[in-house]
Amino acid sequence: MKCRKCGGAAVLELRRHNAAFCSPHFIEFFDKQVAEAIHAHRMFTREETVLVAVSGGKDSLGLWDTLIEAGYRTAGLYLDLGIYDYSKESRDKCEAFAAARRQTLHVERVEEAVGAPIPEVQKVTRRPTCSACGLSKRYLMNRAALAHGYAVVATGHNLDDEAATLFGSVLHWQTDALSRQSPALPSTHVKLVRRVKPLYRLSELETAAYAFLRRIDYIVDECPFSKGATSLAHKEVLNRLEEVSPGAKHNFLFGFLDKARPAFERVHPVPLQECRVCGQVTTGDLCAFCKLADQVKRHRTPLTVAPTARE
Amino acid sequence: MKCRKCGGAAVLELRRHNAAFCSPHFIEFFDKQVAEAIHAHRMFTREETVLVAVSGGKDSLGLWDTLIEAGYRTAGLYLDLGIYDYSKESRDKCEAFAAARRQTLHVERVEEAVGAPIPEVQKVTRRPTCSACGLSKRYLMNRAALAHGYAVVATGHNLDDEAATLFGSVLHWQTDALSRQSPALPSTHVKLVRRVKPLYRLSELETAAYAFLRRIDYIVDECPFSKGATSLAHKEVLNRLEEVSPGAKHNFLFGFLDKARPAFERVHPVPLQECRVCGQVTTGDLCAFCKLADQVKRHRTPLTVAPTARE
Repeated sequence: MKCRKCGGAAVLELRRHNAAFCSPHFIEFFDKQVAEAIHAHRMFTREETVLVAVSGGKDSLGLWDTLIEAGYRTAGLYLDLGIYDYSKESRDKCEAFAAARRQTLHVERVEEAVGAPIPEVQKVTRRPTCSACGLSKRYLMNRAALAHGYAVVATGHNLDDEAATLFGSVLHWQTDALSRQSPALPSTHVKLVRRVKPLYRLSELETAAYAFLRRIDYIVDECPFSKGATSLAHKEVLNRLEEVSPGAKHNFLFGFLDKARPAFERVHPVPLQECRVCGQVTTGDLCAFCKLADQVKRHRTPLTVAPTARE
Repeated sequence: MKCRKCGGAAVLELRRHNAAFCSPHFIEFFDKQVAEAIHAHRMFTREETVLVAVSGGKDSLGLWDTLIEAGYRTAGLYLDLGIYDYSKESRDKCEAFAAARRQTLHVERVEEAVGAPIPEVQKVTRRPTCSACGLSKRYLMNRAALAHGYAVVATGHNLDDEAATLFGSVLHWQTDALSRQSPALPSTHVKLVRRVKPLYRLSELETAAYAFLRRIDYIVDECPFSKGATSLAHKEVLNRLEEVSPGAKHNFLFGFLDKARPAFERVHPVPLQECRVCGQVTTGDLCAFCKLADQVKRHRTPLTVAPTARE
C-alpha cells in the first residue's frame, strides 16, 4: 500500500476515497478537509476567536489541534458533566492539552447550572439517554460563548456522528431536525451564537487516525451512559452499509446536504425570544433548560419547595 | 395470546399494532387495511375493472384474492419472464388461481417483447440485478393495460417492499425516485395507466399470513436472480430496526408519505411524450424499453444488423 501523494509506505487506507496516505500526507489531507469545510460554509474568519467545545475525546481535541496548527485564534470550553471518573479524566486531558499549547480553557460545571450532575439529572427526567445531557451542553455552550464574547462555537462532530443523526431524523421524518441538520448553524438572534462542525467531512476512523498520528493524549473510553444509545445502533447500521459499499455514509450525508436539505428549509423560521427565567433564547416562554433545572430542583427538595418557587 | 376482537385463541401477533388476532379476525383486519388504502388514495372504483399484476407469489395472489372477495371487478396479468422452472411454476400457480375463481388472466411473454428471456437480458445489459427486469415489467404492465382497456394496474407491493425502496432512495437522496414513491401513481398522460399498491399498509409477515390462512397456493421460492439484490440487503437492515422498535418500518414509510413527500413533489412534472419506436410514453425520444430491446437485438446478431437497423 503506497501513499497516493509521495509513493512512500502508506499508514492508512481510505476506501471511500480509494486512496492511501503516509503519515504526513494523511495529516495534510485531514487539514485540507477541515479547511474545505470552513471555507464552504464560511464557518469563521481568522479575525474571530473560535470557542472549541472539547470533551477530552479524539474528535474535539483533534479539531482544536488542527485549528491551532492552521493558525486560527482559539479558546477551549470544557463542560464538566459530573460523570464520576469519566469526567475527571476527560477534564485532565483537556487541561493538559490546553496548557501544553498555551491556550485558554474555560470550564463550566453542569451541576452548578442545572442543579445536579448528569447521572442524577438522568434519573429525574424521563428524556431518553443522552437527551438531557445534549440539551444541557448546547445550552451551556451558547451561554459560555455569550458570557466570554465568542461569536462562534465549534464542535467535534464527525461524518459518522452527522450521518447517524441524519439517519435517526430520517427514520422518523423529523422535519424540524432535518431543517437544522447542517455543518453550520447561523446566528438567528443576538443571543444565539453560530455553531459549526468543521470535521463533518471526516469519518470517525479518520479523526482517530489524526489524533493518533498527531500524538494527542485523549480519553479513549466512551461515556458510560452512551451504552445502548440509539445513535450507536444507527452508527452500527451505517457501518454495515459502509462495509458493503464504501462511501455510503458520505453519500447519505452529502446527498442530503446537496439535494434534500433545501426541501426542508423553513420558509418562515421559528421566531426566537428570551426565556423569562434565564434570558437565553427559546421558542416558548420558558426554555427547555430552565424546565429541566426546575425538574431537578423539585426532585431534590420535594416537600419544601412549591412547584412555582423558582421565580 | 388472545384475539383482540373476540377473545378467542389468536393465531398471529402483530407487535407493531400491539394486537393479536384469530384467523377470521385477522382476515377482517387485512381486508380493512386494503379497503383503507383504496379509499385513502382513491385507487379505483367499483365501476372500473382492476388489472392485477400477478407473479404467483403470496403478495400478488393475496391481493387478487382480497379484491375478488371485496367484490371488485378484476382481471389478472401474468408476465412470463422466461426464468426457467421458476417462471413455469409461477405461471401454473396464476393459471390455477384464475381458473378456480373464474377470472380472466392475460399472459405476456417478456421474450416476445424484448427479444430474449430475462436470464439472457441480464447478461446483455450492464444494469444492476433486477433493474432490466423491473423496467420490462413496468413497461409491459402499462402496455397490456392499454391494449386490453384497463385504466388501472394494481401490484402486490407490501409495506416491507415500499419501505425498502424508500430506504434505497434515501441513502442516495434520489429526489426523482422520492417524488414517485407513492401508493398511487396517477395517470399523467393518455397512454399511461394509473398504478396502485393496495397492500402498502400490510407487512410481508401479514401478507404471508393472509395467503396461508386463505389457503392460497402460491410459489414460495424467491426469484433465483434476487439473491444479493440491494433491496434484500435494505430489507435486512429494516428488519433489524423493526426488531429493536416495532413499527419502525411503518413509521419510516408513513412518516415520509405524511411529512416529507410533499417536499419532493415536482412543481413542474416532467413532460411525457410518445416513444418514436413503440409509441409508449417516455421523457425522451426513445423509451428505455426500446433501448433495452435494441441492445438485446444487437447482441443476438452482432454482425448482420447495423446499430440503426431497428427503424
